[in-house]
Amino acid sequence: MTDGIGSPERTPEIVDLVGKPINEIKGEIIHKGKAKLVYRTTEESVMLMEFMDDATAFDGKKKGSISSKGMYNSHISAAIMRYLNQCGINTHFLEQMEDRFQLVRPLDMLPVEVVIRNLAAGSLARRLGFDEGDSLERPILEFYFKSDELGDPWLNRYHIRALDLCSDDEIVRLEEDSWRINAMLREYFLDRDLELIDFKLEYGRAADGALVLGDEITPDTCRLWDISSRDKLDKDRFRHDMGEVEEAYQEVYRRVAWED
Amino acid sequence: MTDGIGSPERTPEIVDLVGKPINEIKGEIIHKGKAKLVYRTTEESVMLMEFMDDATAFDGKKKGSISSKGMYNSHISAAIMRYLNQCGINTHFLEQMEDRFQLVRPLDMLPVEVVIRNLAAGSLARRLGFDEGDSLERPILEFYFKSDELGDPWLNRYHIRALDLCSDDEIVRLEEDSWRINAMLREYFLDRDLELIDFKLEYGRAADGALVLGDEITPDTCRLWDISSRDKLDKDRFRHDMGEVEEAYQEVYRRVAWED
Repeated sequence: MTDGIGSPERTPEIVDLVGKPINEIKGEIIHKGKAKLVYRTTEESVMLMEFMDDATAFDGKKKGSISSKGMYNSHISAAIMRYLNQCGINTHFLEQMEDRFQLVRPLDMLPVEVVIRNLAAGSLARRLGFDEGDSLERPILEFYFKSDELGDPWLNRYHIRALDLCSDDEIVRLEEDSWRINAMLREYFLDRDLELIDFKLEYGRAADGALVLGDEITPDTCRLWDISSRDKLDKDRFRHDMGEVEEAYQEVYRRVAWED
Repeated sequence: MTDGIGSPERTPEIVDLVGKPINEIKGEIIHKGKAKLVYRTTEESVMLMEFMDDATAFDGKKKGSISSKGMYNSHISAAIMRYLNQCGINTHFLEQMEDRFQLVRPLDMLPVEVVIRNLAAGSLARRLGFDEGDSLERPILEFYFKSDELGDPWLNRYHIRALDLCSDDEIVRLEEDSWRINAMLREYFLDRDLELIDFKLEYGRAADGALVLGDEITPDTCRLWDISSRDKLDKDRFRHDMGEVEEAYQEVYRRVAWED
């Protein structure tokens, strides 16, 4: 594995941080997610992201832990973000560090999640009467409001404007970028014998106001099925107690991150 | 009350039907809604719609009856559809008949409801954390899938296309027409000291494929508040057991339909 290739801005500050042990650069925690922590570093323009083994599902009602998930996910997301950077998508990813840590750009995260669905699965299938794995006449893009208190309710672009969560231009940009990323990711996973069923994206504003892809792209945020066996290689194995959960993450890690 | 003014197509067939007693023109029932029945007539191009006193709420979980509601709603909807016809909106409305019956054009109804919200109320307020009556940065348009089995789930334009419920052009048309209707209705109700909080529209395809506004516009499908007292003059009085339910429908009837 050779880290750092494809990263858009390997500034002297980043090179300096990469050479140091995690404990020397890790500052205060500025964000606690369900499966990730974000820390300040000694550089103002660089954050440190830690991927945890914690796993949650059903709006946090189900909680658990998946052995080594943090390490697998960090490397999987690093590989995919590097690929997207190379394809011209602005992502927060800077450098993979040891184990489960990465350097990322600081972003002011939008309180909006984008979900793209290529096949019917999960809540979409239940809500609209599809069977799991049904093909769709066309892929679907959905917005959700990131609010634990409200249970991440659905949004359309009118709700986003009514709540003033982002501008009209940003909504157009979110949709356009997410569709481009979907096309790139479908091809990327297909090359690794994985079908991208659906996935979630989160964006933030960089210091200059530009929208930048943040968060992670991993089996926690994507449904990924083996192209031949249709085996699920994602968090659905944890959600629905299907067994071989760690093995699924490891298998995606093997197909995605080993070649780097 | 002078019926028939503003109706776009007073053909000889309609004139003929208008002169006859309901029992002579009423054919088989072709649609049973929760609060309306649609019958064939002796003319293929004209349907008879009956407004019932039945009232339901919360996806049919609450059932009841509101005395004289059918008559009030038929006349209220007739007055408003005539106004919209005059404003250049294609509606299914042809003629108000006696009591609770109207003549309408046959439509192949779309399985999609359009909801427009000018102020926060009801499910929107609950879902997104608004207080009842909160103003919105901008009005909201929502689509819902008319499916009793699925509990009328929310849709965005991608779901509509994925389910192939209508074309891209029709989605654009639904949005544009509904926004135009909102502007017309807000003014119309304001002239009658009523604030239009939110409302539902249903459209269908006429024989020539054109989208035409169908269903009804009444206190069953609109939230209407008195402009000064903020009293609710709509089905929320039935939903939430607020009392003076019939009186609310009668008051809207008085303000809307008497002047016709």
